[in-house]
Amino acid sequence: MLTLNGDVGESFGHWNMGSDATLIPLLDMANIACGFHASDPEHMSKTVALCLKHKVTIGAHPGYPDLQGFGRRSMAMESNTVTQLVLYQVGALKAIAEHQGGKVTYIKPHGALYNDMMSSPEIFNALLSAAQSLSLPLMVLATREHQHYQALAADKGVSVIFEGFADRSYLKSGLLAPRSMDNAVLHQQDQILTQADAFIARAPIKTLDGKSVTLTIDTLCVHGDNQASIDVAKALRIRIDSAIAVGGGKQ
Amino acid sequence: MLTLNGDVGESFGHWNMGSDATLIPLLDMANIACGFHASDPEHMSKTVALCLKHKVTIGAHPGYPDLQGFGRRSMAMESNTVTQLVLYQVGALKAIAEHQGGKVTYIKPHGALYNDMMSSPEIFNALLSAAQSLSLPLMVLATREHQHYQALAADKGVSVIFEGFADRSYLKSGLLAPRSMDNAVLHQQDQILTQADAFIARAPIKTLDGKSVTLTIDTLCVHGDNQASIDVAKALRIRIDSAIAVGGGKQ
Amino acid sequence: MLTLNGDVGESFGHWNMGSDATLIPLLDMANIACGFHASDPEHMSKTVALCLKHKVTIGAHPGYPDLQGFGRRSMAMESNTVTQLVLYQVGALKAIAEHQGGKVTYIKPHGALYNDMMSSPEIFNALLSAAQSLSLPLMVLATREHQHYQALAADKGVSVIFEGFADRSYLKSGLLAPRSMDNAVLHQQDQILTQADAFIARAPIKTLDGKSVTLTIDTLCVHGDNQASIDVAKALRIRIDSAIAVGGGKQ
Amino acid sequence: MLTLNGDVGESFGHWNMGSDATLIPLLDMANIACGFHASDPEHMSKTVALCLKHKVTIGAHPGYPDLQGFGRRSMAMESNTVTQLVLYQVGALKAIAEHQGGKVTYIKPHGALYNDMMSSPEIFNALLSAAQSLSLPLMVLATREHQHYQALAADKGVSVIFEGFADRSYLKSGLLAPRSMDNAVLHQQDQILTQADAFIARAPIKTLDGKSVTLTIDTLCVHGDNQASIDVAKALRIRIDSAIAVGGGKQ
Repeated sequence: MLTLNGDVGESFGHWNMGSDATLIPLLDMANIACGFHASDPEHMSKTVALCLKHKVTIGAHPGYPDLQGFGRRSMAMESNTVTQLVLYQVGALKAIAEHQGGKVTYIKPHGALYNDMMSSPEIFNALLSAAQSLSLPLMVLATREHQHYQALAADKGVSVIFEGFADRSYLKSGLLAPRSMDNAVLHQQDQILTQADAFIARAPIKTLDGKSVTLTIDTLCVHGDNQASIDVAKALRIRIDSAIAVGGGKQ
Repeated sequence: MLTLNGDVGESFGHWNMGSDATLIPLLDMANIACGFHASDPEHMSKTVALCLKHKVTIGAHPGYPDLQGFGRRSMAMESNTVTQLVLYQVGALKAIAEHQGGKVTYIKPHGALYNDMMSSPEIFNALLSAAQSLSLPLMVLATREHQHYQALAADKGVSVIFEGFADRSYLKSGLLAPRSMDNAVLHQQDQILTQADAFIARAPIKTLDGKSVTLTIDTLCVHGDNQASIDVAKALRIRIDSAIAVGGGKQ
Repeated sequence: MLTLNGDVGESFGHWNMGSDATLIPLLDMANIACGFHASDPEHMSKTVALCLKHKVTIGAHPGYPDLQGFGRRSMAMESNTVTQLVLYQVGALKAIAEHQGGKVTYIKPHGALYNDMMSSPEIFNALLSAAQSLSLPLMVLATREHQHYQALAADKGVSVIFEGFADRSYLKSGLLAPRSMDNAVLHQQDQILTQADAFIARAPIKTLDGKSVTLTIDTLCVHGDNQASIDVAKALRIRIDSAIAVGGGKQ
Repeated sequence: MLTLNGDVGESFGHWNMGSDATLIPLLDMANIACGFHASDPEHMSKTVALCLKHKVTIGAHPGYPDLQGFGRRSMAMESNTVTQLVLYQVGALKAIAEHQGGKVTYIKPHGALYNDMMSSPEIFNALLSAAQSLSLPLMVLATREHQHYQALAADKGVSVIFEGFADRSYLKSGLLAPRSMDNAVLHQQDQILTQADAFIARAPIKTLDGKSVTLTIDTLCVHGDNQASIDVAKALRIRIDSAIAVGGGKQ
C-alpha cells in the first residue's frame, strides 16, 4: 500500500517554514532537513520529537550546503564530496534522533541534490555509497526504469523506495513534465486527487502530452506550504486509510 | 599509562592548517574537528583515513558554530542547544568514520566550548547529556576536583578522561594559569618536557605561583602547529613509549 | 518631532519574516538588516525598493555574524573586529541602495550588538569609529546620559539619534527594565499608547519601580511581527502625524 | 604598458593563504577577496592596509557565496542575484578601504563567477550592471573579441580591463586551453616568461594547438601560492619595470 511522505523540519534559527504540527500527523514518512539547506540542530530535535509523538517514520533529507538558496541551486561537486556530505547530514540526524529513542530509517535527497541524483549516474552512485554504509534505503523518483535503479542499488545492497507526485504532471516517458511547461504543476484539488487515485489503484495516469503512463510507486509526496496543500494531504490520508481498510492494509 | 592526544583535521575547504600527516602518527588519540569551527565533510573523511592508517584512536572534537572565530569565541547558548549541536557534530563524524570501518570512541569539546564546559555546570551537563546517548566518554581538563566531575558523569553513566597540558603553567589551585599571566604558556622545550615528566611519573608539578600541585591525568595534549611543537610531540612519544616498555605498558 | 523607526528586511533566502509591505509605509526610518544576522543581497535590494517607493528613510541595521541565533547572542569580539564588520555591512547596503538611487542615512546596530554597544564603552567606540568614516549618525538607546554619549560621539564628529520604546517598561534609572522582570514588556495596546503619548509630549513616563523618568527621544521603535504590533504602529503613526499637524511638524 | 595583478587577501579567520606580504609589493593591482569565497572584514582591512603601504591599486574580487568551495563551484543563479551579490561585496570593501583613506578602483570577479561571466552573456551583463552603478571598470579575460565586450560595456558606461595569463596555454581561438588538456597550465619558469615577453611586446603567443594568436592585454595575472610563482612575479616585475624605463613608462 502507498504511504504519504512530506518534507518537514525546514525552519531555520528564528525563521519558520511550513506547518509541521499540522502536516506531520497526516504523514507516514517525514523527510527531515539536516542543516545544510535548512534547519539546525535544535529544529531537527524538535521535528524528531513531533514525529515520535505522532508515530511517523523518520527519514533524513540531506541537501547541498546552501542555506540562502534552500538547496535548490545545483552545485558542481565531485562524487566523493557528495557521499561525505550525505554521510555527515544523515549521521547528524541519527544522533539527534537516537537521543530521543528514535531512529532514521531512510534517505531522501533534497532539491537540486535530488534532481542531480536522477540526472547523473555519478551522483546516484555517490548517494548509494552513503546509503550502503548507513544501511538505509534511498528514496528516488519513480520512472519507467525501476529495474535499472534497483539493479544499481542492489549491487551495493541498498534498497530503493519509489516516489510519485500527485500534483506534478508527467510525460509519457514517465518523467516529470519540466516546470517550464504549462500545467507542469497541478493546482486544482480535483485534478491532484484524480492523479493520486490512479497511483493508489496502480492505474495509468494521464500525461501532459496526451497519452498515459503507469508508474508503480511506494509513496506519494505531499506538501504543507499552505492551506490548499494541507487540504490535499488530508484528503489523501483519508483515501489511503480507506484503501488500507478495504484491502487489508499495513500489517 | 598516559596517552598523547592532539587536535587534528582543522583544515577547511581550500585552507590548510596543522601538519596532520606528521602529527597523527605520534598520537594515541586524535581529536577530529567536526565542521562547526573547522573542517568539512571531505576533510573529516581524509582525517579519519589518516587515523585508520596509523591505528590512532578517533575522537570527536565538536565546537561552537563559528568558522570565522575558529570556535574560540564563547557564544551565549541554552543548554539544550549545546546538547543538540554536540549530538549533530559527533553523529556526523560517526557516519563518516563508519563508512571507512572506523569508529568514534570519545568526545573532546573544542576551544570556547571546552572552557565553558569547565566553568559552567550547565554546559558540562549539556555535554554529559550528549555523551550519554552516544555512549561515549567525555574528555575534560584535569583539576583537583576529579571526584566532582566523575560523580556528575557517573550519574549519567558517562566516563571521564582527564587531560593535562605539558606546555601550560598551572596554579596551586590546580587550574591553568590564565593566559594573561606572564609565562602562562611554556615555550622552552626543556620546561615542557620537565612538566611532562612530572605528569608521567605522577609527581607534583611546579606551579606559576611558586608552589606545586599533583594532578592525575589520563592523557597529555600535544600540538602540531609548528616544528617546535612537533619536536615536543616526538620527544613525548619516545618518553611515553619508554615508560610503557619499563612499566609493562598498555595491555 | 518624533519619528517612527522599525526593523525591516529580516527575511533570509526562502524564509520570510515580518510584514514589511504593511510596516514600511507606516515608518519614517527603516532599519534594514545587512546579511550577517538576517537578510541577503537580494532581500536587501527588495527592501530598499520598498523604502524608496514609500519615501521612507533608509538606515543600516548591522549585527553579529550569527544567522542561526539571529544576532541575539553576544559574541566575544575585539573592538577593531566590530568596527570592520560594521563597515562591511553598511558599505554593502550603501552599494545596494545607491544602485537604485537611494542612500543610507544612519546606522542602528541590531540585537546583541546594540546591547553590547550600550554596556561596553569599547564596543560603543568601535561603532563610532565606523560611523565616523561613513559620515553617518548612530542610533542609540535613550537613557539619562545623553550628554555622555553625545560628547563621546562629538569627539569623532558623529551625531547621535536617541531611541525610545513604547512597549518596554523603564526603571527610574532611565534604563530598560530587564526582560526577566514581570511586565518588562508591555502587551496591552492602551498601556503602550499611554507611554508613547508621554514620549511624544516629552512628559515623564511611569517606571516599573513605581517612580517616573523623563527621557528625551528622537525616535520611537515599532514592530511588525504580528497584527497587534502593526495596530500599535498604525495608531502611533496617526498620533505623530496629528502632533505634527498641531505643532507645525517637520519642516 | 602592462600592469601586474594578483589575487590577495584570501585568508579566512584563523586560516592563512598565500604570501601577501611578499606578493603585494610586486603588484600594480591587488584583487582583494570580499568575504563570500574567502576573507572576512578583518582580513579585508589588513589587506587594504598592506596595499596602501605599498601604494598598490585596490580592486574588489567578489565571488560566489561558497567558502567551502572557495568560489570555484559554479552556482545556478539568476542575473539579478549576481548583480546584488557583487554590489554587496564591492560596497563592503569600499567602506573598509575608505576607513583607511583608500579606495576601490576596479572589479575582477573570482573563480567560477569569472568563468561564468565569460561564458554567459547574462552573467556578464549582471556584472556590468553592478559596475555601472559603482562607476568602476570591470576586468575580464582577454580574448579575440575585445570589441564585443567593449561595446556591451560601453552601452552601460563601463570600461573594461583585459587580462592575460603568462602561465596558461592558449588555443588559436584566443581562448584558454581547458585544464583537461595536457600542458594547459605552464609550470616551467622559462616557458612562462617567454609567454609574458610576448604579451609585453604585443607579439603573437604560441598556442597549444600549434598556431599562434595575438592578444592585446592591459594586465598580466600573477600568483603568490608558492616560491616558484613568487619567483615568476619578481622576474615579471623586473621585465615590466625595464620596459617602462625604456619606453617611457606609465603616463
